[in-house]
Amino acid sequence: MNETVSLLQAHRSSRSYKSDPVPDEILDAIIESAHRAPTSANIQEVSLVVVRNATSRARIAEIAGNQPWIAQAPVFITVVMDLYKTGLGVEKAGAEQVAQRSLEGIFFATCDAGIILATLMTAARSFGLGIVPIGGIRRDPQAMIDLLGLPKNTFPLVGVALGYVDHESQQRPRMPIESFRHEEKYHAEALRPAIDAYDLTLQEYWQKVGRKGGLTWSENTAEHCKAFSRMLKPIANKQGFTLEV
Amino acid sequence: MNETVSLLQAHRSSRSYKSDPVPDEILDAIIESAHRAPTSANIQEVSLVVVRNATSRARIAEIAGNQPWIAQAPVFITVVMDLYKTGLGVEKAGAEQVAQRSLEGIFFATCDAGIILATLMTAARSFGLGIVPIGGIRRDPQAMIDLLGLPKNTFPLVGVALGYVDHESQQRPRMPIESFRHEEKYHAEALRPAIDAYDLTLQEYWQKVGRKGGLTWSENTAEHCKAFSRMLKPIANKQGFTLEV
Repeated sequence: MNETVSLLQAHRSSRSYKSDPVPDEILDAIIESAHRAPTSANIQEVSLVVVRNATSRARIAEIAGNQPWIAQAPVFITVVMDLYKTGLGVEKAGAEQVAQRSLEGIFFATCDAGIILATLMTAARSFGLGIVPIGGIRRDPQAMIDLLGLPKNTFPLVGVALGYVDHESQQRPRMPIESFRHEEKYHAEALRPAIDAYDLTLQEYWQKVGRKGGLTWSENTAEHCKAFSRMLKPIANKQGFTLEV
Repeated sequence: MNETVSLLQAHRSSRSYKSDPVPDEILDAIIESAHRAPTSANIQEVSLVVVRNATSRARIAEIAGNQPWIAQAPVFITVVMDLYKTGLGVEKAGAEQVAQRSLEGIFFATCDAGIILATLMTAARSFGLGIVPIGGIRRDPQAMIDLLGLPKNTFPLVGVALGYVDHESQQRPRMPIESFRHEEKYHAEALRPAIDAYDLTLQEYWQKVGRKGGLTWSENTAEHCKAFSRMLKPIANKQGFTLEV
């Protein structure tokens, strides 16, 4: 073990923030860390929009489905898949960009966006800040596009609120490791026993923390995956991500 | 600054490895760190396949377009978008999963996969290991699916090779920060000057490290984005990711 691994293994999302601002030099170091993160083939097709303005944060809190901690925390960073920026480079090289029309373009940009998001969170937590990643901005991506002035061939994939924590949250248990880590090949037979065990573990955890009506993992996953929670294809298409190949 | 931020800002990919194995307790701590990383709505829809078998690593090196460092490094971890696992939970809750048929399902799973990948890389580097992320497994996803025995509703998104570094690589300069960090709104006007400056910076860097024929960022990006490098939709569809909404 070392300091970094201890920090990673202690991850939790925080949903209660003080209004204290994040000092500029700390925010700079966090963003510089993300800027140095690995990126597919050095393409660097991710951009950040840093929002500190309280009116904009209140609007994002609303867009994300009324998440008050977004308005509370002093900084919100949107992680943008950015094939507009790359398009300028491709044009400068005398060619026409088509990557945005392919699933591969979505794959490399979302994966790099996830790397950037993780790096922001790890760096922020290393300075004692709390974080909460926000996929809820995809409830209304058009509103985010309008708020941030995002051009064609971009998409607001995910965001993160950060600030000094008021009330610290507990760390929720994860599924048994056998459902996550497979050796040499995928071992489907390990899954059902792990799911059954975890459904019980989560029930016990909800009891321990006094949460009534807490769902098992299976029930929670069903809530999120049994219907099309977000029909994003028309907005992605309009932005230029046409998923042709 | 602190130890973790120094580590993040010193990121580089390594392409030269010793054959020394990674001790089990270190690999366990790296994977446990990724297992604790944040995941969308606690869905935990990412799985890892850890490959140490030399024959499999040689095969992955070939699939990824002949990248010898994959065969050289003692460990290769594939990061799998896993809506097969979630489907078992949804079924247990008496419902039918449809998330895999939506772009939203792709977005949350790829973003979480990127978070897991970043966490694996940061944890590995904190133990003094080198890493190289490998998107090249998407050159032939079907070969990876066959090799790893991946079920329906899964996709091998990305991988990472890790081990003790033989010859350390240099850190390549990044684009100017103004092309990455935007304040309050997206500032498109910052991009062209940043691209022009970076094209020159990279040319100077290639000269400094003695690489002949090194491309500017614009030229490199054009090479990757001007054609459909990978036509993944049929394989994603076959796996269950049908992109209907």
